[in-house]
This record gives sequence, C-alpha cells and structure tokens, in this order.
Amino acid sequence: MIVNYIFSDKVSSLKASAIREILKFTSDPDVISFAAGNPAPEAFPTDKIAEISADLLKNDPILALQYSVTEGYSPLRDELKKLMSEKKCFNSDIDDLIITSGAQQANELSCKVLLNEGDTMICEAPSFIGSLNAFRSYNVNLVGVELENDGINLEKLEEVLKSDKKVKILYLIPNFQNPTGLTMSWEKRKAVYELAKKYDFIILEDNPYGDLRFDGEEIPSIKSLDTEGRVIYSGTFSKILSPGFRTGYVSAPKEIIQKIVVCKQVSDVHSNIWAQVVCHRFITQVDMKKHFDFLRSVYKRKCGLMISKIEECFSDKISFTRPQGGLFIWCTLPENSDMQAFCKKAVSEYKIAVVPGNAFNISENDVTTSFRLNFSTPTDEQLVQGTEILGKLTKEMFK
Amino acid sequence: MIVNYIFSDKVSSLKASAIREILKFTSDPDVISFAAGNPAPEAFPTDKIAEISADLLKNDPILALQYSVTEGYSPLRDELKKLMSEKKCFNSDIDDLIITSGAQQANELSCKVLLNEGDTMICEAPSFIGSLNAFRSYNVNLVGVELENDGINLEKLEEVLKSDKKVKILYLIPNFQNPTGLTMSWEKRKAVYELAKKYDFIILEDNPYGDLRFDGEEIPSIKSLDTEGRVIYSGTFSKILSPGFRTGYVSAPKEIIQKIVVCKQVSDVHSNIWAQVVCHRFITQVDMKKHFDFLRSVYKRKCGLMISKIEECFSDKISFTRPQGGLFIWCTLPENSDMQAFCKKAVSEYKIAVVPGNAFNISENDVTTSFRLNFSTPTDEQLVQGTEILGKLTKEMFK
Repeated sequence: MIVNYIFSDKVSSLKASAIREILKFTSDPDVISFAAGNPAPEAFPTDKIAEISADLLKNDPILALQYSVTEGYSPLRDELKKLMSEKKCFNSDIDDLIITSGAQQANELSCKVLLNEGDTMICEAPSFIGSLNAFRSYNVNLVGVELENDGINLEKLEEVLKSDKKVKILYLIPNFQNPTGLTMSWEKRKAVYELAKKYDFIILEDNPYGDLRFDGEEIPSIKSLDTEGRVIYSGTFSKILSPGFRTGYVSAPKEIIQKIVVCKQVSDVHSNIWAQVVCHRFITQVDMKKHFDFLRSVYKRKCGLMISKIEECFSDKISFTRPQGGLFIWCTLPENSDMQAFCKKAVSEYKIAVVPGNAFNISENDVTTSFRLNFSTPTDEQLVQGTEILGKLTKEMFK
Repeated sequence: MIVNYIFSDKVSSLKASAIREILKFTSDPDVISFAAGNPAPEAFPTDKIAEISADLLKNDPILALQYSVTEGYSPLRDELKKLMSEKKCFNSDIDDLIITSGAQQANELSCKVLLNEGDTMICEAPSFIGSLNAFRSYNVNLVGVELENDGINLEKLEEVLKSDKKVKILYLIPNFQNPTGLTMSWEKRKAVYELAKKYDFIILEDNPYGDLRFDGEEIPSIKSLDTEGRVIYSGTFSKILSPGFRTGYVSAPKEIIQKIVVCKQVSDVHSNIWAQVVCHRFITQVDMKKHFDFLRSVYKRKCGLMISKIEECFSDKISFTRPQGGLFIWCTLPENSDMQAFCKKAVSEYKIAVVPGNAFNISENDVTTSFRLNFSTPTDEQLVQGTEILGKLTKEMFK
C-alpha cells in the first residue's frame, strides 16, 4: 500500500511549466523548435572557457572544488559591484551584491524574503512563466497589469495600487521582455519609480537580456533611479556566457541582501564555485566590449532573419513585435481566433513548435491570441525554413 | 530616506548560521580551526576531474554550457538509479530520482513540498544547523527528540507522535550524524519505520557521509525498508568528490519527486550541468571501490589522530563520541559547565576554533554543554597541535 501524499498548499496546485509540454514535441528531430529560450549556442566562447577552466583546475583546484561562502566568490562580487556601479545599478552607500544560482534564484528568493502568503505581487501581463511559478510557489496573490508597447499601463497599475493595500512587489522585465520582446520607455521607468515611492512598494527589476541590445539606444535601468532602496536588480551570465553555469547575481539594499543570503544558505549553501571563478576570469581577461559586439551581431542577424521572413510569409492579419534585443518575438493572431488550435496544428501537422501565449498569463482567466517565437536557438536555416512553413499555416487559417 | 523593510514572517527571525560567526575567527592565520565541515581537501581527485573537464569542454562544450533539464543529466540519473538500486535506496516500482544543488536543496525542497506553516517536523536533538534553518525558513514547527548513542530515543519519539497530530516529517541523519558523529542502529531504523507506518508520517533520510565509513559494519538505510513510499533519501557528491560542485540527488516516491521537480524548476531551473557531467564520467570511469578505500583511509587516519590526542591530552571530565565514519567528533563538558565560555576562551585566547553545541539546538531553550570538533579539514599537524592546546584548556577549566 502506497501512502496518499498530502502536499503543502503552496505547491499542491503548482504545475510544471506549460512550455515543457511543448518541448516534448521538440525531441522529434523533424520538428523545428521556436519554443526554446536558450541563448545562441554558436555564441558561447567555448575555447576561452576551456582555457580558463584548465588553468583553474591545474593551478587552483581547491578553490574550484571546496566549499565556498554563500555570498559568492569575492573577486567576482567586487568586479560586478564595479561594473554595476558604472551602470548605476549598484550604490555602495545602500546596496550590496551577491551571486545567485541564476537570476531565477534571485527572483525566487526576493519573493520568499519579502512576501507572506496572500500578499500581492504585480506583474506585467503577460510575463515570464519561470518567475510567475516561483511567486506562485509561495502562495502569493499575483495581479497582472496590461503590458503596452512602451511598458506597463500606468493608469491600470495605479488603479490596482489604489484598491489593493497588500501590494509589496512590482515585478518587471524592462528590456526585451520575456515573452513579448518589448522594452519599457524611460518615461515609464521614471513614472513607475514615482509610484513606488507614492504607494510604498518594492520593484523587482529583472534584466537577463539587457546586454543583448542590438538596435536603438540603451535606456537606463529603474535601479539607476533608486535613492530610497526600493529596487532589487537581478542579472545573469546565462545569456552572455553560459546558462549551464547557473550563475546570476542580485544587487539590492543591504538589509534585503542579508535576508537573501540567509535564504540562499538554506537553499543551496552557495552556487557552483568553479563557474563563479570562470565568470570572474572571463570578464576580467576578455575585452568585454568586443565580446558584447560579437553577441549582438549574432542576435541582430538571427532576429532580422526571422522578422524578414515573417514580413514575407505571414498572413497580414498577424501582428508581431520588433524587438531591439533579447531572444523573443511576440505574434498575435486576430481577435477571437483559436490560438491554442493554431499552436497545436503548427507542431503536430507542420512540425513547428511555438509557445502558446497563455503559458505567460498571470491568471487562468486571461484570454490571449498571442504566441512566442524564439530566434536565438534555431540555426539560420531553421529560422528561414520554419518561418516560411509557419507563414503558410497563418495564411491558411487567417486569409 | 531609506525604506523601512518589512520581511516575510518566514524569514524575519531567521539568522545566519551561528557557525559563520565562529568561522570569522578562522580568517586569523594563527587560529587552528576545528569548526569547519569541509571534506579533506587532500582527498579531492583533482587530476582526474581536470582530465574529465578538459575532455568535456573540448568535445562536448554545448552539453556543458547550454541550459539543461530540471530533473538533471539523464546518464547521471540512470547511473545513480542503478547504484541506489544495488543499495536498496531506489525502488523503480515506486521511486524516481533527480539531481539537486547539493543535498541541502533536496532537504529544503522536501520540506517546501510537504509542509504548511505550522506543521510539525521532528528532528534529532541536536541536528545539522543547515537543515534546521531550511525548515525554519518555511515557518514549520520543529520538535527535537533526544539523540542517544544508537539513534533517536524511541519512547520520546512516540510520545511526540501521540500528542502532536501535525507531524508530517521525521528528519534523520542515520550515519555519522552531524554534529554528533553517532550512527543509528539497525534495530532503531526498523523501529522508526514501523512508527512511520503506525503514525502515518514521512521520513527524510539524509545520508551525506554514508560512503565515509572507516570502521564497523555497514548498516542498511531506512530507505531499504520502504515498501509504502514513506522515505525520501538524499545523497550528495560533496563528501566523495567535490562540495564546490553543489551536486546532490534525492530518491523518493514518484509523486513527491514530481513536486520537487516543479519547485526546483522555480528555484534554480537546474543544477550546474558541467558538474553533473563530470560526476557522471567520474563514477563511470573510475574504480569507485578503490576511490572509496582511499577516502576512508584518509578519514580513518585523521579521526584516529584526533581521538588519540583527545585520549592523551583532554581532562578526563570531558566525554566524546568515537565515530565510525564521517567528519565530526562530539565532545561534552561536565554538567552545568559554561560551554559557551569554554568555546570563546578556546578561540580568543588559545586560538582553537570549535563550534559551540547550541548552534545545533532545535529550540532556543535547549541546554547543552557539548561542542563539535571537525577532523577532516585540518592538516595532520594542526590536528595534533590543536588538540594538545585544547586539551590544556580542558585541564585548566575542568581539573
């Protein structure tokens, strides 16, 4: 007889990411996948990483293999503090910075540290499913506010703030948002920070893609506006070096970092230390401007390729975003169309995997006719061929 | 003006590990530290790890650097399932096995998945502070039950089970427990499993040191008794290969693993994949019996060295455990003596750092006159010299 398990309220209704269901189809070698969120593998600086690793394991093996401190490898923290200071994402008077196991852990622990069950967190609607599920796993109340082309809708945001007194965090991905690829304007960043002061809440600014801007002018972070210790800023090496490392970081007011450190200590003691040292040596040994230029050229080419094929092949009833960086394009079918049927047909009959937009909904009742395309993972050939095939389906279903 | 932060109830009273306070003294080069919990650095197979890593980064760089799946690297999971089956710690009919970021994450997520705030978890008193703090971070009710020389006191355990209807998990470290070095007898393992059936709770069996037995006969795990899916078993590569990897694993009933996978996904997506592949190649390429024999010889020598110096130099008023494996010896001062004053004097005047036993208390009201000694991290010379010096202090304070 097997036990009838009773799970905690936090996790009993939590499901594995819907994207995973789609990704199952992508094990079929005939399927072209636009469903992933992986950085372009051809952009990994594999030779340099191998060189740094060989030197490290030969000359400092104990550093790379022994237990380390929860806060992270000190030289890496110091270097990041310097780089983040230059970007005004770190203010040494009020902030501290620690290394996390990817930005995912930074976002999850920010929630654990600040929110009780039933407290409210506001998110852009739609938003990144990994973060949403992290917040859900603490049984917090997620409220979605419409995302417009230049960022979150400020009027609707203030409406929520006026009516809900339990709002503690506003979660934002201001640059090349996942899933939409949209970027928040400077005006809205300033306005959102003013609202944080007025309504006394914390902003969790997640910036995994910021270094991957291949078009337009850089917009300063919300963190750069932070004079009151209201912004938690998370970054990662996943998109610029290697996601397999699981090396991210978080810059936030010292008191918040202290609590995050305690929670990280009980979560995984510290992040893989080999990867932390490799990150440090990479960013201090390599000409990072050159490295970023190379990454941006790869992403610009791949995004441009997909956009040009969308323009050429998609039904003109389909709208889509034109990201200035990042990994994703967000396509929207005509109102009232059956997006899920479209995505299912795409993968089962046309062998093209995309992510149905409802995966990124905040509430189960939200309605969307959008889907997400990824341009970083496929090869150029797959981008061309797959977008053509998907275009045929759009013309068939939306003449 | 800086915000006045209000932290979640879960973490507001959570403090950084008391051991960390002690470890601060150990940055003084004159201090000999018996306070760590690090595996013996001279036992790391650094050359083989460097060789495997070089081959991996040369021939399969994308495998080592790209995103991977939450469950862990499949060949490693398969190999561990095989090894755990041989030890009867994995039953393919009811269990699944996933890779975690150290056993710490396995223990933390087991708690997150099964316990609501206010539910009860029973622990050996004393127990491992890292696990205790993980459980505390979910605001669960920790109840300590006295640990005897052959394991948890069964009568007192049953008393708690009779009176507290909210007990959901019993947390145990049956082999060479941290902090005491004690091992649970086979009779008690069987009795505890019977109690789990009678009172319908789950056992979380944490076995980080099991492979480091250097004396006595191996005792089968509690997991090996599990016919009803009541045991979650966590293991790790930290003590046999490298703690810096942060590679652990958990074998548990499939339903529980499914929930742990969802929670791990939102916590860190997956564990560092380079380390997972290195672990897999190491355990499949190396003669593991020979590797374990080597590790055990190192630990046996270091433990023996410390024990012989304790016998020679300590006041006979001090009692101590004689571990058959693991990393720790547990010393107890005479009743009513001021253990904290002893530990403070040891580090500040005698330059020997030990961990005061109250760090491992379940409740703040528990009284202890014990302290923990670690024999794996110091050099042989430090073991001899430091134990002699500590002996002088014991004779001075307890004539």
